[in-house]
Amino acid sequence: MENGEIPENANEHCPGPQSETAGQSDACQGCPNQQVCATAPKGPDPDLVAIAERMATVKHKILVLSGKGGVGKSTFSAQLAFALAAMDFQVGLLDIDICGPSIPKMLGLEGQEIHQSNLGWSPVYVESNLGVMSIGFMLPHPDEAVVWRGPRKNSLIKQFLKDVYWGELDFLVVDAPPGTSDEHISIVQYLDATGIDGAIIVTTPQQVSLIDVRKEVSFCKKVGVKVLGVVENMSGLSQPVMDFKFLRITETGEQRDATEWVTEYVREKAPELLNMIAFSEVFDSSGGGAEKMSKEMGVPFLGKIPLDPKLCKAAEDGRSCFTGPNCGLSAAALKRIIEKYVENEGLSKMLIDDNA
Amino acid sequence: MENGEIPENANEHCPGPQSETAGQSDACQGCPNQQVCATAPKGPDPDLVAIAERMATVKHKILVLSGKGGVGKSTFSAQLAFALAAMDFQVGLLDIDICGPSIPKMLGLEGQEIHQSNLGWSPVYVESNLGVMSIGFMLPHPDEAVVWRGPRKNSLIKQFLKDVYWGELDFLVVDAPPGTSDEHISIVQYLDATGIDGAIIVTTPQQVSLIDVRKEVSFCKKVGVKVLGVVENMSGLSQPVMDFKFLRITETGEQRDATEWVTEYVREKAPELLNMIAFSEVFDSSGGGAEKMSKEMGVPFLGKIPLDPKLCKAAEDGRSCFTGPNCGLSAAALKRIIEKYVENEGLSKMLIDDNA
Repeated sequence: MENGEIPENANEHCPGPQSETAGQSDACQGCPNQQVCATAPKGPDPDLVAIAERMATVKHKILVLSGKGGVGKSTFSAQLAFALAAMDFQVGLLDIDICGPSIPKMLGLEGQEIHQSNLGWSPVYVESNLGVMSIGFMLPHPDEAVVWRGPRKNSLIKQFLKDVYWGELDFLVVDAPPGTSDEHISIVQYLDATGIDGAIIVTTPQQVSLIDVRKEVSFCKKVGVKVLGVVENMSGLSQPVMDFKFLRITETGEQRDATEWVTEYVREKAPELLNMIAFSEVFDSSGGGAEKMSKEMGVPFLGKIPLDPKLCKAAEDGRSCFTGPNCGLSAAALKRIIEKYVENEGLSKMLIDDNA
Repeated sequence: MENGEIPENANEHCPGPQSETAGQSDACQGCPNQQVCATAPKGPDPDLVAIAERMATVKHKILVLSGKGGVGKSTFSAQLAFALAAMDFQVGLLDIDICGPSIPKMLGLEGQEIHQSNLGWSPVYVESNLGVMSIGFMLPHPDEAVVWRGPRKNSLIKQFLKDVYWGELDFLVVDAPPGTSDEHISIVQYLDATGIDGAIIVTTPQQVSLIDVRKEVSFCKKVGVKVLGVVENMSGLSQPVMDFKFLRITETGEQRDATEWVTEYVREKAPELLNMIAFSEVFDSSGGGAEKMSKEMGVPFLGKIPLDPKLCKAAEDGRSCFTGPNCGLSAAALKRIIEKYVENEGLSKMLIDDNA
């Protein structure tokens, strides 16, 4: 990476287009870029210099990653941004999931557009201290598929880093797509010189999800990004008993709604159930879940968030799960996780200093 | 696409490297591939010819797609393959999720390796009529991240199509990664000449997931792949009441396990609850879910599968959810969906013909 971006179609041991031997080393024989590399001017990528300038006003950069999709990564990124903003930090949220941007929806910003000023692209603001940038704001039609191969995605990510005017930020939270491919290589490479605090990795307790998280941790180690911690999301469903619907199975095997009847029946016969919480593991976590995996891989475990219809609803509605009535069991869990992260990284000091 | 694959770094109006004007049209000015294109031999990509030969023995090719990850696409692909194999069809399952292959785990094939014969790469067989191919079988270390950009992923997909010896197949089920990027463009492009039956798209009822499904449908329309149907997965959690754990909240706000106590209490005071099913919507589907979206977009809706710990466990254990005791509420739903697909496409006739 020190020698600039290696082209997509380069030979295996490409010395890098910025290298002294670009286009002239043994590895360059037969490479389609050989001629271009041999003749191109050498030196650092001017875009990386522009990115470093933009990022000079950003104190902390956090990537939110997941191995698999659908584990609640964007929900976590959104709620992390809401929580940090509620602590009075200046927060930016950058969505680099080019093919499936969920962030506009989750921040309640659907249909918003990006404006341009002489300082650059302006983020869309939820609050004065919470700005958001996503390709979602640029699509003329929300149903339209973004059918882009890697290089085009990379170039938009570069532009986001280079051209967005965030101003002074305490935190830039970057919501990445699942996996370890173009977007991930690019964001790490582009931010390399300016420093990344590290990555928070979101997973579910399922083995299939944990397999991919291990890959994500190994990716972080490979590219030198610190793992700030692992979050286990959808750790079972936890819900007051009386929030469920109840179904009775008829003799013919059909399911009939019996919720009203059950409510009455429980009130009369078994009132102690009214205040109970019912819990279902949903995903098998007999393998020890993310906590055990974190220990095995030597990375911090930040905590578990239960599957909670109230959190899902907050995400659908594009609002913080911490505000409003009935903020649910998951909000408390999320809050503990964010506090743990802030404490682990010694950021509470910053909060105190700033407020002093 | 008719003029061969357009290189990653081509200029915008690239005529295609196989075109008569390759390297010589106005659009080629300044393109890094100009020289290669101008001098390369013209004609169809020989790999596409090899793929067409391989695919000549495959009757039906089905893509399983999803907009977002983690919606249960691989679980569906795996169970679809199990179900078709149980109907005595000859089935191949190809996993093209290069960065996060879940299929080996979900078919109970972890740690298996691919063997090579003079006919090509041999799939790994679950049963004599169910063969599987995945990059997961090729990784020396399961934790290792596959940090590959697009072109390298595309080339492996090509190799899978070109070099795997499936023999005679009734169905090739292709499990794609989420999104609409390199893998999707490539698989459609490579299979274009041999014909794809169509795509089954898996989603959850959440709005964020449906937004991405709309993109997936629009992608299919764009590239001319028929949408065989949409499946709504994780349509709420459905579970017998007594399969839950019960928690009591103490005065200090802690949660204490009270499952044993509740079991006894319900048996004694409210025995009618013992046969009830509790249902939680989990994900907000007030927007009408996938069924409404399918109607709006004019594509068939195949059905809903509830979130069911028994299905999750089957996926984790790498086995069919249709066999064994207690096969759960989801298995029945899945079965109805697969039957509907078979019926919609007139494939039941094939079953009868074959068995005649």
